[in-house]
Amino acid sequence: MEKITSLCKRRGFIFQTSEIYGGVEALWDYGPLGALLKNNIKQEWLKSFVQARDDIALIDTPVIMHPKTWEASGHLKNFTDPLIECKHCHARFRADHMKEGNFVGQGRAKEKNQCVQCGEKEFTETKQFNLMFKTFLGPIEDESHIAYLRPETAQAMFEDFAQVLETMRFKIPFGIAQIGHSFRNEITTGNFIFRSREFEQAEIEYFVKPGEDERAFDEWVESWEKFITGLGVKKENLRRYEHKKENLSHYSKRTIDIEYKFPFGWSELTGIANRTNYDLSQHSKFSGKALVYFDEEKKEKYTPYVIEPSLGIDRLVLAILIDAYEEIKGGRTETTKSTKGEEVVLKICKKISPIKVAILPLVKNKPDLVNKAKEVYKLIKNKFYCQYDEVGSIGRRYRRQDEIGTPYCVTVDFETLEKEDVTVRDRDTMKQDRIKINNLIEFLSGKLDL
Amino acid sequence: MEKITSLCKRRGFIFQTSEIYGGVEALWDYGPLGALLKNNIKQEWLKSFVQARDDIALIDTPVIMHPKTWEASGHLKNFTDPLIECKHCHARFRADHMKEGNFVGQGRAKEKNQCVQCGEKEFTETKQFNLMFKTFLGPIEDESHIAYLRPETAQAMFEDFAQVLETMRFKIPFGIAQIGHSFRNEITTGNFIFRSREFEQAEIEYFVKPGEDERAFDEWVESWEKFITGLGVKKENLRRYEHKKENLSHYSKRTIDIEYKFPFGWSELTGIANRTNYDLSQHSKFSGKALVYFDEEKKEKYTPYVIEPSLGIDRLVLAILIDAYEEIKGGRTETTKSTKGEEVVLKICKKISPIKVAILPLVKNKPDLVNKAKEVYKLIKNKFYCQYDEVGSIGRRYRRQDEIGTPYCVTVDFETLEKEDVTVRDRDTMKQDRIKINNLIEFLSGKLDL
Repeated sequence: MEKITSLCKRRGFIFQTSEIYGGVEALWDYGPLGALLKNNIKQEWLKSFVQARDDIALIDTPVIMHPKTWEASGHLKNFTDPLIECKHCHARFRADHMKEGNFVGQGRAKEKNQCVQCGEKEFTETKQFNLMFKTFLGPIEDESHIAYLRPETAQAMFEDFAQVLETMRFKIPFGIAQIGHSFRNEITTGNFIFRSREFEQAEIEYFVKPGEDERAFDEWVESWEKFITGLGVKKENLRRYEHKKENLSHYSKRTIDIEYKFPFGWSELTGIANRTNYDLSQHSKFSGKALVYFDEEKKEKYTPYVIEPSLGIDRLVLAILIDAYEEIKGGRTETTKSTKGEEVVLKICKKISPIKVAILPLVKNKPDLVNKAKEVYKLIKNKFYCQYDEVGSIGRRYRRQDEIGTPYCVTVDFETLEKEDVTVRDRDTMKQDRIKINNLIEFLSGKLDL
Repeated sequence: MEKITSLCKRRGFIFQTSEIYGGVEALWDYGPLGALLKNNIKQEWLKSFVQARDDIALIDTPVIMHPKTWEASGHLKNFTDPLIECKHCHARFRADHMKEGNFVGQGRAKEKNQCVQCGEKEFTETKQFNLMFKTFLGPIEDESHIAYLRPETAQAMFEDFAQVLETMRFKIPFGIAQIGHSFRNEITTGNFIFRSREFEQAEIEYFVKPGEDERAFDEWVESWEKFITGLGVKKENLRRYEHKKENLSHYSKRTIDIEYKFPFGWSELTGIANRTNYDLSQHSKFSGKALVYFDEEKKEKYTPYVIEPSLGIDRLVLAILIDAYEEIKGGRTETTKSTKGEEVVLKICKKISPIKVAILPLVKNKPDLVNKAKEVYKLIKNKFYCQYDEVGSIGRRYRRQDEIGTPYCVTVDFETLEKEDVTVRDRDTMKQDRIKINNLIEFLSGKLDL
């Protein structure tokens, strides 16, 4: 894990928010490479679940919604963590994390039921703390102007159920998808981007006829897993965890987490829930608008069940980086100039790697060669995210690109000037192909699956 | 304007947030077509300003930042609107909007200086109201835990200046780009998505050597305008408005708004500001970290100036929709079944239109034809956003697609079954080409500039 966070910081994937001010706990900035990686994941998700399907529509809605939303959804009442405070040093802990005596995820005390921070053993009574961030709409800060930052994107899909159904002329089953920021005022945070106070979700609410829900649930578990492994997360690092009946959320009939073997242990990467007709029924009740489906053919009216596959994009980024990370002891042997130290190759799934192609002139002191390389660079960068690099030995430049997961390095050498072809080196196999410049875009497009 | 909002609602581009609860003032949901349109605009922006350039890197940072940020930036002190309140009905107004006697954008009173709502004339003293939304990090709601929702994305680019410079090995001039939500607790709102409390920005902070700033400013005004017209906003509906020296923001040396001729009058669509070295200097001062640039060649150290082209994506969406909207009196004459009423064609720039291609079987009661059409649909939708539609006459289906701006309708007819070719109809010219199915993707890719 330390190696990942250090690489992320060193090469500009992810660093602390407002780092110059000492950072903010559990908030993270995606730097140049991280931001591209994240955008690529989101676009692949849209391609798989919106573009390639007939039955799912995208929406894009604000973080702030009508406060009634959270009354109807149950978040105002139920979205809480039990909070206790050390009476001496006022450190705060999750009471439910103290069951085993120590505080999971917040360090380990020497003795049971001891404050990790000061060592004392007196705590306040447990208090329910709501995890929604609160703000005020308009200039008056009173109860009637409270609004919340959404803790999940899902509720907008329930509220927009009727509009989407009508404008898209959908028939059941159909789904509504959204990608966006959600906010949770976590008491305990940690493990890098695993548990942040602001994070990005990709969620689908898939509406089905009651009775069809169990089959749809199983299908979504499969699709979701397939999407995740399709982006390079290793199957052997995933497992399913079925929530026990007594631990299910208030709205859920069945929930399966897909867990990933993080360096800090198996933890939830993503989840699929059968939310039944709870949300639509609640919003119907609180709004007075009937959120129901009318089957024209069978002339029957019902409140659909909903299956919710939900994905935290930041967690997926983390899993992808961990599974992509490889250290090669003693270095790869392709160039004579290879240092003998450890080399890092980030084997990110090619179609989502932040930089797709690096263009490297063999040497930088031959103007002909450099100009030709820049020409190739101009040609390629209209199509793919590219980097041009002329600094350092060719072996060193390969290693620099390997470390950020660039799938292809294109080297322009003296032969290029005569034969109009270049060497294309594959990150994973180190195989080198000689490709005509005229065919380069087609060759790379095929390889990159774009 | 009413026609646009009505089309947006009817066809699923944009509707009110939490509409089932009566909506929330100045918050809007992008429905299925609007969400795709907006995503396309963002991806085009990334392509133009990040992918196609060597000197700009993307970042993606949270809405919540360290509170010191807003002290340093001046927002805590200066980001306010003057607020007055009617002593009788407690309606709130912007004092600066009352200069002409009436309340611009909040209705028109019968007499000068009269409350628009109740007609009385007594107001409270003007009070400065800060437009940043406030929240609390962690469970304690006191001064020391206040955090704000960012009112602009820009400050993250200043705080991350040193990390981006180092990890990207940039030389000046270079820029940092970001797309993301920003929040302003506006007292007066209105004009559909023109002034929302939560909106999406695409901003670049472009760092230059002092002395190079004026030239860079001019270049950015040109590039920004070119990008906007490249997405279909008509040149004749744009004009430049230069802020007078005495009205400049506290950080600005020069600001030009690019105004658009909205139905409610010329108003700011986007702006370019010369923010000088104000922000980097302030963050250096407040953080104690030197945010400076060291020129290796010339051995000189300086605080860069910054040019900021800033774009409100929602306003751009609105301008694009307005300029794309065309009503054709009496209808287009291509089919005999054309109704004689008014027809709407939404001539959205093809590369950003939400649905790129519609696949239409000529009739729906011939299984051969329908199957063939579905086959073509499957082929195309892996590449483009598509709709399959078999409901209604072919003329009616063309009109349905025209109304949402679909550039190409592909019709599968009886000849298709024999000759493996289809009719491709162009939205704007209504010209029909006969294209072999094998060549269809290539033909459409070329036309759609993708």
